[in-house]
Amino acid sequence: MKKLFVIGIGTGNPNHMTVQGIEALQRADVVLVLDKGAEKSDLTDLRKEIVTRFCEDNPPRWVEAESPKRDASAGYKHGVDDWHGAKAAAFSRLVREDVGEDETAALLVWGDPSLYDSTLRILDRMRDEEGLAFEHAVIPGVSSLHALAAAHRIPLNEIGEAVLITTGRKLAERFPPDGTIVVMLDGGAGLDALEGRDCRIWWGAYLGSEDEVLMSGPVPKVLAEIKRLRAACRDRKGWIMDIYLIRQGAAAQSRDRGLL
Amino acid sequence: MKKLFVIGIGTGNPNHMTVQGIEALQRADVVLVLDKGAEKSDLTDLRKEIVTRFCEDNPPRWVEAESPKRDASAGYKHGVDDWHGAKAAAFSRLVREDVGEDETAALLVWGDPSLYDSTLRILDRMRDEEGLAFEHAVIPGVSSLHALAAAHRIPLNEIGEAVLITTGRKLAERFPPDGTIVVMLDGGAGLDALEGRDCRIWWGAYLGSEDEVLMSGPVPKVLAEIKRLRAACRDRKGWIMDIYLIRQGAAAQSRDRGLL
Repeated sequence: MKKLFVIGIGTGNPNHMTVQGIEALQRADVVLVLDKGAEKSDLTDLRKEIVTRFCEDNPPRWVEAESPKRDASAGYKHGVDDWHGAKAAAFSRLVREDVGEDETAALLVWGDPSLYDSTLRILDRMRDEEGLAFEHAVIPGVSSLHALAAAHRIPLNEIGEAVLITTGRKLAERFPPDGTIVVMLDGGAGLDALEGRDCRIWWGAYLGSEDEVLMSGPVPKVLAEIKRLRAACRDRKGWIMDIYLIRQGAAAQSRDRGLL
Repeated sequence: MKKLFVIGIGTGNPNHMTVQGIEALQRADVVLVLDKGAEKSDLTDLRKEIVTRFCEDNPPRWVEAESPKRDASAGYKHGVDDWHGAKAAAFSRLVREDVGEDETAALLVWGDPSLYDSTLRILDRMRDEEGLAFEHAVIPGVSSLHALAAAHRIPLNEIGEAVLITTGRKLAERFPPDGTIVVMLDGGAGLDALEGRDCRIWWGAYLGSEDEVLMSGPVPKVLAEIKRLRAACRDRKGWIMDIYLIRQGAAAQSRDRGLL
């Protein structure tokens, strides 16, 4: 039986790799890479750096394919559904052609595979729709959620309180009335929705990497600067991966322990 | 200046340690341990195992103190507040007496330091209330959130949807009307609040360790068994650390991809 390891590699620092992730990678015969868009070469470079560093004696084969593109005209969920289907077909081709029977393949997933990543859904579709037989295991990693909190040296939660993890899109649709909110996958609408709100933000981009940028403070004071910095970073690198935490109401009064 | 590293060590598997965490630990002159209650010896044993394994050449000193106890009669937040104050005083004593000037101390935190852990708050209070001067850095780790999802091989979020991380206490107070919810720190009230609800649960205890137990399925079918198993585990080991994800409504129809 073919075996796939879905390995969380952390957020851009090769030292985020866990011992468990390294051991799984070292057992792999082949690394499968399906990357997309502008961030493609940077993400691929990070994966290559990880493989070179941790598998020097016996490096796995490197198999790469162009990722299908999402049809942005199709509406969000429908577009995503089609896109996952196309990715499942592309990944299935790789597994059929490039992974031998009884071989093990590694999929190196940015952050942790459980949060806003499509790999696990695609694996299910490879089995259900493409009729591919394989075993798989998931190796947890450092997610941007924890990388953000660590970089700012803050707890995610207030004492005994809840934390809502959501997307920029959903934040823009309906702003939750209180509490701590972590926003991921924000194309910009989420930050726009913060305009004029009395809350506090801890923002970070390219967490863990050499390009890491952090900023925090009261939204009325720092939002414009975060948006400016975000646009400048994206222009310079061609892509941005960022995340932020906001606290509203009483929670926003917590002292700013950010670093910048 | 004294330096403290707050290191997330993952959820019970020494292989959850990241390279960054290992390197920080290897730079430490001393490991400070403040443990509590029934789980004390198991958590301490895991930390010892990690130090022995990753610092064999030049192990740091090991300094341990009894953790102050929380006054359960004082109401939750007030009790926690006093308790953090007492812990800040106890930790300050350790740092004053057992960490030399220009030395580095490591605090090994279960899971990730940002989620339902008091260490970062206690460090702030050591600075603010105990007048202690030190630098500190936080090293993110694998949290039980991601360990749970990895063990069950599920995404935390539905496509483009939010995830609420909350406590058993808060779930029992007010049950959110829909969506994906991850419950941590449940003394039992949260599971009781699931009684009779049409949702799906993915539960895990002692994640990553040799004692890991997983169970998943529709709540009406598996809740009683989870509660039975949970009580049996706690009786056997003297403590339990568990976490679960529930999906309600349409999200609960997602296929059960659990392993048990």
